[in-house]
Amino acid sequence: MPLWQIYTPEHAYSKEDKQEIAEAITSFYDKVVHLPRFYVVVIFEERPADTIWVGGEAANRFVRIVVDHIARHTSNEAERDFAMAALEKLLAPYVKDRGYDWEIHCDETPKDLWRVQGLTPPPSGSAAEKQWALDNEPTP
Amino acid sequence: MPLWQIYTPEHAYSKEDKQEIAEAITSFYDKVVHLPRFYVVVIFEERPADTIWVGGEAANRFVRIVVDHIARHTSNEAERDFAMAALEKLLAPYVKDRGYDWEIHCDETPKDLWRVQGLTPPPSGSAAEKQWALDNEPTP
Amino acid sequence: MPLWQIYTPEHAYSKEDKQEIAEAITSFYDKVVHLPRFYVVVIFEERPADTIWVGGEAANRFVRIVVDHIARHTSNEAERDFAMAALEKLLAPYVKDRGYDWEIHCDETPKDLWRVQGLTPPPSGSAAEKQWALDNEPTP
Repeated sequence: MPLWQIYTPEHAYSKEDKQEIAEAITSFYDKVVHLPRFYVVVIFEERPADTIWVGGEAANRFVRIVVDHIARHTSNEAERDFAMAALEKLLAPYVKDRGYDWEIHCDETPKDLWRVQGLTPPPSGSAAEKQWALDNEPTP
Repeated sequence: MPLWQIYTPEHAYSKEDKQEIAEAITSFYDKVVHLPRFYVVVIFEERPADTIWVGGEAANRFVRIVVDHIARHTSNEAERDFAMAALEKLLAPYVKDRGYDWEIHCDETPKDLWRVQGLTPPPSGSAAEKQWALDNEPTP
Repeated sequence: MPLWQIYTPEHAYSKEDKQEIAEAITSFYDKVVHLPRFYVVVIFEERPADTIWVGGEAANRFVRIVVDHIARHTSNEAERDFAMAALEKLLAPYVKDRGYDWEIHCDETPKDLWRVQGLTPPPSGSAAEKQWALDNEPTP
């Protein structure tokens, strides 16, 4: 958690861009949500022209982001607004500011149907979770 | 919303086919569900042989469709049956009639964890949503 | 149901590996969950270096598995623990034992937003479902 899948045109982002984007996303979950950094997985999905269609037309300047939140779920509208505003802010330099159209949605999936390195992740906010964050790796 | 991901064998569909399929899907959400056309995103995911396996065997004549519904959720069995029957009808010329095996499933994800061009989409059926549909683009 | 998407480095698994993995997964749902074998769809998603990022760093020895469960949902913690332990056990030879890092999560999506060959799958545990399992294909 979270799993980000970022669908882009081919060559939309350089390796340096990808590193920056992955770091910006990771930093949000680390500093704001207080998750272990290694929880944050980002997959860049480059797609050739005429692969992504929006409103019945080929959309070759469009970035579509799909996120699964597992470790933490929002519990009210204010939290959801806060989260989405924060994610939009970190994305802006890579979508809006570069002239891409973009869209994002998140799902929230069951925490207890999730394993990291075969281990059950510790409860949210627990001492064990803080230790995983400190170690930046899962330990039994 | 909706996001369609269509996993197919390589070269299953030409660019013209993709345009027709994207248009058929968009038209359903436009005319029947009354969503703005630009809400409808379709990604064609072509996969080489021996990538997709069904029942333990390579499935090289198989189309697998995964849909996320965000803007509208069904509220009862009748709506779900109606939606699935309508989707099957629009897909039939591209799967059944071409000799492909196929399978589809939809998820329904939280509307308030969704942004388009950084904007919160207007409430379902609101005047603002109708305006977005009329403009075929999001406006603040 | 289920739909498995296995994101791996390029060339992580040979065709024979893929066949074995698909068979191990299918066999679990067949023998333990008693689902028709053809319900089990596995898509191997090979990704080039610098596509998958974990904790802000390129993760080129990492396998990320995403599962949608549709036909059967868990109803309590014990079932979820049992399922995840069983899945980890069948995966171990292909991830842990080969030196890959790995992570898996499952979602549970609505059974009545799912169609196979255009047909509504029969109720869980019904005689019709047993027939589909026996035939290893959907019949009206």
